[in-house]
Amino acid sequence: MNIERILVTGRLHKQIQEIVEKKQLDTCFRFLAKEQVTQEDLEWADAYVDFGPIENMNYKGLKWVHSLGAGVDAFVLNRTWEEQVLLTRTICSFGQRMSEYCLSYMLRDVQKHDTYASQQAEKKWNPIAPTMLSSQTVVIYGTGEIGSQIGRVLTALGTTVYGVSASGTQKEGFTHVFSRSDEQDVLQKADWIISTLPLTLETKRMFDESFFSQLHASSFINVGRGGTVHTEELVNALNKGQVRQAVLDVFAEEPLPISSPLWNHPNITVTPHISAITTPKEAVACFMDTLERIQQGKPLLNKVAIDKGY
Amino acid sequence: MNIERILVTGRLHKQIQEIVEKKQLDTCFRFLAKEQVTQEDLEWADAYVDFGPIENMNYKGLKWVHSLGAGVDAFVLNRTWEEQVLLTRTICSFGQRMSEYCLSYMLRDVQKHDTYASQQAEKKWNPIAPTMLSSQTVVIYGTGEIGSQIGRVLTALGTTVYGVSASGTQKEGFTHVFSRSDEQDVLQKADWIISTLPLTLETKRMFDESFFSQLHASSFINVGRGGTVHTEELVNALNKGQVRQAVLDVFAEEPLPISSPLWNHPNITVTPHISAITTPKEAVACFMDTLERIQQGKPLLNKVAIDKGY
Repeated sequence: MNIERILVTGRLHKQIQEIVEKKQLDTCFRFLAKEQVTQEDLEWADAYVDFGPIENMNYKGLKWVHSLGAGVDAFVLNRTWEEQVLLTRTICSFGQRMSEYCLSYMLRDVQKHDTYASQQAEKKWNPIAPTMLSSQTVVIYGTGEIGSQIGRVLTALGTTVYGVSASGTQKEGFTHVFSRSDEQDVLQKADWIISTLPLTLETKRMFDESFFSQLHASSFINVGRGGTVHTEELVNALNKGQVRQAVLDVFAEEPLPISSPLWNHPNITVTPHISAITTPKEAVACFMDTLERIQQGKPLLNKVAIDKGY
Repeated sequence: MNIERILVTGRLHKQIQEIVEKKQLDTCFRFLAKEQVTQEDLEWADAYVDFGPIENMNYKGLKWVHSLGAGVDAFVLNRTWEEQVLLTRTICSFGQRMSEYCLSYMLRDVQKHDTYASQQAEKKWNPIAPTMLSSQTVVIYGTGEIGSQIGRVLTALGTTVYGVSASGTQKEGFTHVFSRSDEQDVLQKADWIISTLPLTLETKRMFDESFFSQLHASSFINVGRGGTVHTEELVNALNKGQVRQAVLDVFAEEPLPISSPLWNHPNITVTPHISAITTPKEAVACFMDTLERIQQGKPLLNKVAIDKGY
């Protein structure tokens, strides 16, 4: 595929411009803030790069859309997609980044950081043994690129890791991968549930009362998409003790509204969607790699299957 | 060596008793609180098991002393040792435990837990990218069983790990091991210094002003022995910014006295010597394994070299 004119917009456009301009490419670029993009720019471009579409997006003249994020729900969920347009997404170091995010909150818990911080504040010396990772059982929802990487990292540290995916296909990094609805037994012994799921029609609010009621004081980490969680039912599950704590990096509405009860629930950690933040440098590296592969006809590692939504 | 009568004392004696009594061994045991131990008990025993000696310790009738901790300074530092007495120490999962301790505090830092906790308290949504472990350089003092295990774990996660040891012998888990006094260059790029050093005549207060002045805002983690650090000079180095933060699990005096300035220094984390806490179960497992090896004449993996002090 030949790509000649690329429109880069959204919150990273300036930073991407700086990096791209040092590279002296033959391809033409326009770097524009979202509100500056006109229909003329869209008609000019054969490729579009951002985290999501502009209002009144028109895909007709485009050959390729590249998502600067890993999730592509903004482009495809409840929208019609022009079949002939290639959609790719950013992958890069997301798996490793999300592994470190999840691991950091697991270790904060098993190493009892909060307990020791309180004791330090009170000048209290009261040794309580931390729990080793090898005693922990983790169930990861989503066994793609990201879920598998989290699985590999946690497995290497001695944690017992199960996966749950639509297909139930076995993957490296998991003791066993269950297909969805086959995972009941393993949920009972889960110390941690980690969701890396994309937002699709199938995953929308799938973490609801009936899901949480199967847990026995598990901790729940969401690095996938906020829309996969029924927020009110998560809060109920926390209050009932089915969920011991929740670490949430993603929310149905972002930024999380000030009025949300999640902000000051004692057993919820809120982070502002940073578990796999796209740094301009990495975003450009992945985008440039994808561009090169497209122009040289090489296989793409990050092509989105529109029917699946990821 | 034939061991027939074992005296177990100190804070774990009751818990060890419970476990040992289920095992129906031929060996005779006495399980006594420290203040109950008499000279008669010592003379009766051919083996002594605890974290340190009793007052007026008398090694004459003993063949074997087993330390329930990894450090043996309480037994040998500034004391004469009866050459014919075998000294062993607890090893077991210490390396993995200390790896998880160190990793937890490294991840707390690079994942900006404290920043996000403050933002959550203020209901503030302000994404700042976490730093990846792969960008971090760590220098580990001590490349024995424990230091090497920490090195292997951090290397597997992409961190650059250097070692410093008395001999400078190369070991798996380290990009390079420097001999002591050869490490100046690497200290300048260290994001983290981790000490696993035992307390010996050579290591006593070796982390002092002249050491800290070589650092450029490194973080300092001590899981070795408190006596290796010149406390006042560490506090000065923190105040000057040579050390950015200190995570201290061990102290020259334990429990850390209420009067210590370490408790409420804003850049110091104090934990009550829990990075490699000996659980009774593990302590017994290691002790039983050592006993069996001694009685069957098998090689010992945890024999202390008295001249080195570890």
